[in-house]
Amino acid sequence: MSAKWVYFFGKDRTEGDGKNKNLLGGKGAGLAEMTSIGIPVPPGFTITTEACVQFYKDNKNYPAGLWDQVLAALATLETAMGKKFGDIENPLLVSVRSGARVSMPGMMDTVLNLGLTDESVKGLAKSSGNERFAYDSYRRFIQMFSDVVLGIGHHQFEHILKDMKNARGVKEDTELNAADMKELVEKYKALVLSEIGRQFPQDPKEQLKYAIDAVFDSWNNQRAKTCRKINKMSDDWGTAVNVQSMVFGNMGDDCGTGVAFTRDPSTGEKVFFGEYLVNAQGEDVVAGIRTPEPIAKLQTAMPEVFGQLEEVYKKLENHYKDVQDIEFTIERGTLYMLQTRTGKRTARAAVKIAYDMVQEGLIDKRTAVLRVAPEQVDQLLHPMIDTSIKYDIIAKGLPASPGAAVGKAVFSAEDAESWAAQGEKVILVRAETSPEDIGGMHAAQGILTATGGMTSHAAVVARGMGKCCVAGCGAIRINEHQRLFTASGVTIKEGDILTINGSTGEVIVGAAKLIEPELSGEFAEILTWADTFRTLGVRANADTPHDSQVAREFGAEGIGLCRTEHMFFDGNRIDAVREMILADNEEGRRKALAKVKPYQKEDFLGLFTAMEGLPVTIRLLDPPLHEFIPHNDEEIDRVAKASGVSAEHLKAKATELHEFNPMLGHRGCRLGLTYPEIYEMQVYAIFEAACELVKQGKVVKPEVMIPLVGSYKELEILKDMTNEVAQETIARYGVKLDYLVGTMIELPRAALTANEIAEHAQFFSFGTNDLTQTTLGVSRDDAGKFLPIYVEKGIFKEDPFVSIDVSGVGQLVEMGVSKGRSVRPDLKTGICGEHGGDPDSIAFCQKAGLNYVSCSPFRVPVARLAAAHAALK
Amino acid sequence: MSAKWVYFFGKDRTEGDGKNKNLLGGKGAGLAEMTSIGIPVPPGFTITTEACVQFYKDNKNYPAGLWDQVLAALATLETAMGKKFGDIENPLLVSVRSGARVSMPGMMDTVLNLGLTDESVKGLAKSSGNERFAYDSYRRFIQMFSDVVLGIGHHQFEHILKDMKNARGVKEDTELNAADMKELVEKYKALVLSEIGRQFPQDPKEQLKYAIDAVFDSWNNQRAKTCRKINKMSDDWGTAVNVQSMVFGNMGDDCGTGVAFTRDPSTGEKVFFGEYLVNAQGEDVVAGIRTPEPIAKLQTAMPEVFGQLEEVYKKLENHYKDVQDIEFTIERGTLYMLQTRTGKRTARAAVKIAYDMVQEGLIDKRTAVLRVAPEQVDQLLHPMIDTSIKYDIIAKGLPASPGAAVGKAVFSAEDAESWAAQGEKVILVRAETSPEDIGGMHAAQGILTATGGMTSHAAVVARGMGKCCVAGCGAIRINEHQRLFTASGVTIKEGDILTINGSTGEVIVGAAKLIEPELSGEFAEILTWADTFRTLGVRANADTPHDSQVAREFGAEGIGLCRTEHMFFDGNRIDAVREMILADNEEGRRKALAKVKPYQKEDFLGLFTAMEGLPVTIRLLDPPLHEFIPHNDEEIDRVAKASGVSAEHLKAKATELHEFNPMLGHRGCRLGLTYPEIYEMQVYAIFEAACELVKQGKVVKPEVMIPLVGSYKELEILKDMTNEVAQETIARYGVKLDYLVGTMIELPRAALTANEIAEHAQFFSFGTNDLTQTTLGVSRDDAGKFLPIYVEKGIFKEDPFVSIDVSGVGQLVEMGVSKGRSVRPDLKTGICGEHGGDPDSIAFCQKAGLNYVSCSPFRVPVARLAAAHAALK
Repeated sequence: MSAKWVYFFGKDRTEGDGKNKNLLGGKGAGLAEMTSIGIPVPPGFTITTEACVQFYKDNKNYPAGLWDQVLAALATLETAMGKKFGDIENPLLVSVRSGARVSMPGMMDTVLNLGLTDESVKGLAKSSGNERFAYDSYRRFIQMFSDVVLGIGHHQFEHILKDMKNARGVKEDTELNAADMKELVEKYKALVLSEIGRQFPQDPKEQLKYAIDAVFDSWNNQRAKTCRKINKMSDDWGTAVNVQSMVFGNMGDDCGTGVAFTRDPSTGEKVFFGEYLVNAQGEDVVAGIRTPEPIAKLQTAMPEVFGQLEEVYKKLENHYKDVQDIEFTIERGTLYMLQTRTGKRTARAAVKIAYDMVQEGLIDKRTAVLRVAPEQVDQLLHPMIDTSIKYDIIAKGLPASPGAAVGKAVFSAEDAESWAAQGEKVILVRAETSPEDIGGMHAAQGILTATGGMTSHAAVVARGMGKCCVAGCGAIRINEHQRLFTASGVTIKEGDILTINGSTGEVIVGAAKLIEPELSGEFAEILTWADTFRTLGVRANADTPHDSQVAREFGAEGIGLCRTEHMFFDGNRIDAVREMILADNEEGRRKALAKVKPYQKEDFLGLFTAMEGLPVTIRLLDPPLHEFIPHNDEEIDRVAKASGVSAEHLKAKATELHEFNPMLGHRGCRLGLTYPEIYEMQVYAIFEAACELVKQGKVVKPEVMIPLVGSYKELEILKDMTNEVAQETIARYGVKLDYLVGTMIELPRAALTANEIAEHAQFFSFGTNDLTQTTLGVSRDDAGKFLPIYVEKGIFKEDPFVSIDVSGVGQLVEMGVSKGRSVRPDLKTGICGEHGGDPDSIAFCQKAGLNYVSCSPFRVPVARLAAAHAALK
Repeated sequence: MSAKWVYFFGKDRTEGDGKNKNLLGGKGAGLAEMTSIGIPVPPGFTITTEACVQFYKDNKNYPAGLWDQVLAALATLETAMGKKFGDIENPLLVSVRSGARVSMPGMMDTVLNLGLTDESVKGLAKSSGNERFAYDSYRRFIQMFSDVVLGIGHHQFEHILKDMKNARGVKEDTELNAADMKELVEKYKALVLSEIGRQFPQDPKEQLKYAIDAVFDSWNNQRAKTCRKINKMSDDWGTAVNVQSMVFGNMGDDCGTGVAFTRDPSTGEKVFFGEYLVNAQGEDVVAGIRTPEPIAKLQTAMPEVFGQLEEVYKKLENHYKDVQDIEFTIERGTLYMLQTRTGKRTARAAVKIAYDMVQEGLIDKRTAVLRVAPEQVDQLLHPMIDTSIKYDIIAKGLPASPGAAVGKAVFSAEDAESWAAQGEKVILVRAETSPEDIGGMHAAQGILTATGGMTSHAAVVARGMGKCCVAGCGAIRINEHQRLFTASGVTIKEGDILTINGSTGEVIVGAAKLIEPELSGEFAEILTWADTFRTLGVRANADTPHDSQVAREFGAEGIGLCRTEHMFFDGNRIDAVREMILADNEEGRRKALAKVKPYQKEDFLGLFTAMEGLPVTIRLLDPPLHEFIPHNDEEIDRVAKASGVSAEHLKAKATELHEFNPMLGHRGCRLGLTYPEIYEMQVYAIFEAACELVKQGKVVKPEVMIPLVGSYKELEILKDMTNEVAQETIARYGVKLDYLVGTMIELPRAALTANEIAEHAQFFSFGTNDLTQTTLGVSRDDAGKFLPIYVEKGIFKEDPFVSIDVSGVGQLVEMGVSKGRSVRPDLKTGICGEHGGDPDSIAFCQKAGLNYVSCSPFRVPVARLAAAHAALK
């Protein structure tokens, strides 16, 4: 017996488990679930994702039994509907749609009205009593099928349609009559014949098989792949295929179609939110071609249907206990639900909905925390437009995805990608977006479209990406060819800077002033809940008292990384630093360092004060000395003059300090071992600052961190030095002060010999930036030439500098933790690379048993939430 | 009961196990062993190395029981000798000498004549009947004791001696009489009093205690530490202390002292070899102050003693079954042996002795192979002077350590070190060398001394190091101050180039022509024996047919690494390579590559032919493309002209290709993945060459190696490409050809994910050069600034680029092997970094279970021998 590939859903019998999205896909599971809880759904059947996976395994051949099961399900469907496939009296028509386990809107192919042939169209005319409708459906089917299955571009059909309208002297499709439609059908068929050398298929079962093939194929089209890459979805999942009996929203004014959300997906407010079009097919709403009506209007237009719809949406939300994104069609006054799925929402909405649902008793706090995606809340932490200033607002569209974006205008997705690749921030301006634009949307800071509603492609995708979007901004007139748009008499050319406000829909000329976000209200509350679930500590990487303050307000529980070298550049001290570097001997260096020390001490006083009571990890000098020396002639001359040395001397020093591979050069603790006086100065500054504050009654928790250790001996020597200076200073001030000495684990050798190193370290902080560079042998500064190709070819699932490479770098981190703890069970471990703010990496840190993560101040809330997710999952 | 710290040796009772060098030290074990087999040795006792180790553990305090045991042994000694310590009739005098488990000649301190006081000196005068001798011994003792124990420099005593000789109007010490000696004693004692503020110690037991302390202390003096570092000896071993009753070689002309080897340590010939001095103490021979007589003269001078000596040396060699380096003293016609130890020998001698002893039935082949140190035979593979040419020979000294050296003359050890650090090859020219010079000797190509014999410090140390040395070259007159020497009227100034021939003793002006060595005779035979013991394969790193030929003659069993990029520079092809790099698109690159291909194919034809029947591993292009492009303006202009492009274009390309960290940049398989056409061309060239030869009936075994793989996906893609090209080519030629596709493991991530990678690799070759760079995060090109300091501070025991870092890099190699074999049990594994020719690293490779090592052609014999040692140990 062959495996079960096909699951039927219908009033009398629903085979599939509505919870099993992995098998049935999101859409298929939703249809099965809705049917089984008594919601009106046109019956049909779902071909499983497993069938698709097997299809690819078998070199695109149907797995054994699939076609037979399809035919059997079709027969059941005919019985349920009382119609026959290809019938010339009352034909059964079906839609064929993709449906992956996670929604990929618009990414894969769909065929509607399948089953129409030269014969069955007559049946449809009869059964609907509407010949024009029947032939209109047929010519739409031919176009859609030809585009999706036969690979004949739809513009060729539109060209024929346009010619016909010109010939008839009409403007709208609706002005064409039944005869015109028949003629169109003939012309369309002729086009197909000339393009593929054979007739448009007249066997409905053949049509069905082709359509299923096409949906399977569409799993691996370019835009689907891109979508999966962006959304970190596996290429191995496959898509399900849903074959469902057609209902028609375009049979007259008692028909219609719409999409809606059970709550506002933009703000999260508890209002029924959606749009509908009278006398239209579903694709018309999503494609954004006609601007639809707000759902509220349906209440007046079709009160009975609206009542039904309200009942259904409430039932669905209660059933799923989450916001639902639903599609419906009204066929001659009867409501049919075509889809329900978890509604995508903005971060703001996610936070509000999660919070509200807890208040409503619908979900618990644990669920609420898990409902807010850490990746997404980042957008709440992005700057917002400072509304206290007056801006030059030239247009207002729909506030389709909140936040603010400033960038240069570009007019194609390709340009958006290529400009962004060169480091430009861009706003993608399009009449409307289509699935092909997905790469460009991802690359842009924000999206501005002229047409389309709140549920148009641009709006839905932008919200999913957490990108600011202003949609349906009819006031802008775009000239794609000239790469410009005009609005209110102002012309914005390619490269001109504009600002869009996704929360208000405003389009502003120039760069608006952005202000820092704050943590407050429901978001702050949810983070507090998150804190109760997480076991990982969250610290911040901060080098200044201001950053420390911000981090603390965002909930940081200490500083995980203070990079002292950033302080070296501030103000006058760079002169003393350069004097130190230019000195020919230790005495000269000490003299110069004596000048730097008061500044360093001041830095630490500020930092310790801002972080009073919390641990502050200070990394001693890390970068190679040549980073403090100018390199080009002009700068050398300037600095030489300023510091009173000859340009030749400076140039000679720069040459002497030059390194072939500075990343692997004379830096980190290697500096501390070759010029002990530098680290000594820093350690004195740390402990003098700490002791002074302790004298004032403050609680200070310094943690001295030695960078780039590869051998325990390096750490042993520098730890001894640190302890000596610390003890001497503490004794001198006559205070009591606890402190830690530890190290970065950022070289493979350090992880490999972590048991030796832990003998001398009270904590490990994994510096995964450098650890990634060395483990993978990839220089971050040079990787631009191949890393994108690597991600594209799937060699790396993701940029390993963004999300930790679990199998390589992660293995070393786990090794470091377990070897370290084997000799020092209470070893504190953390991560301070940029991965510390990446949710996937945080999940890894949880698994690896780290004590804390440390990230940039603005990522702290993301990390708190991600840590909670990691603990709960 | 306390531990046993002291072991007595004497005719009636010998406590120590003469085999236990670790406990008794080499000297102590030798004395115990000689005593127990009935060889005349002055009795004494040995304080164990464990006592020394404990002494350091206890902060330089004697371990419990030590002093009591010393006193007890002293009493036994007094009984045995019939003398009393400090006696005024017939005092017992002793020597106090260090003795580590491995000989460190001259590194640690010695005190002779201990036991002399103002009182006992009278006893010595009485018992010897020679007052002058007694006071001479006393004043020598005061000087030695003061130098070693009290820290009063010996030059101060020599100054007093010189003044005395001047006052007496005499030239030699021997011209001073007993009264003079007495006066000297008083003056010496006065110096001691003024220097240390107290009297020279008059209690012999106090003297003994001080002397033992001093020997313990000398274990950690600077030159001993340096010696241990060079010889890879542990700092934790400690030294034994040998307290032995004195015998005197300086009591008259029936006295003498000498050192000898049971075979010639330079050539290995089976002749008794040594030197002696009449009426002298042992230190006089070793220090090289007086030029001694050849041992053969002793036969005429003291036939009876010589006969005894012959008997003893033969007995010793038979007993130890190895060449012995012996010290003896003749006291009034009686022979005493003071030391026996394994004789250090040149590589040439080691080979001959090992070979001869097998022929003599003294040892088996296994022992013979183990007797030849792989580190050492390298010198047999160094170039020799081409004697077919006439040179300007200006002097001839003793051929103290064979081989030839060309370099610039320097006149101090410090200069030798600093010049060598700057990449200069130097010859160290000294009147004589002393233990302080050891660093400079190590840094020099060769050593030339004006005084001292074949067993002088310079000669012994140079032979141990395998360095060429000409000693006792009286014909050169050195002016250290002006940094020059003259000989035969020629002046050689600092920096002038000279050549020394350590096999003939010749000193040559300028650089002599050196010729390549050959493998022949006894050495070839011993390597053949070695081959029967080793389990590791030995291949060579070779890029040309000539290198391959050399490697094959030296016994290479294939090529482990052919670096194709070296071929890219040859002749005209670099132009085509540059054309390829300058091309703006794939088409342009393919056009240029088509020009390179015939050359590449020719290269491989040559290589495969030279290595017929043996495997040849070819690494595809590895270095970043900018290595093929000139960088300075002048070169750019030249190349631009030559290749017909504008200098601007070339400069722009160079800028575009510039990398911050080229080591971690766009290279290796990253090139193959971004420009597949490059690797494709190389793979075609490999397989077309191979197929052509197969057609000619030759056996070809190509192994294609993909470099810098970090993820199995990289390898998967490139392996598929390679197989496709290979299959296509093999089919086109219609031949049968087996080949392998494998990868370098040279990134930590590759080792960490070796199980994934092995799915796609038929072999792993560990590229430990790059693996060391990435694992340690150390750029080889930049490490010069800190690596020497690291080795000095003991952070690295050795330069990790010379000898593999077992605990870090080694761990990854072991991981790579075991993970790789876990999925592919027959995975072939090898090493092709420069470690492949390093004996310690080879021992590691054996332990790690690799199949082969690959090294430079001239290291192949070293590797064969080292692999045998590794298998036998």
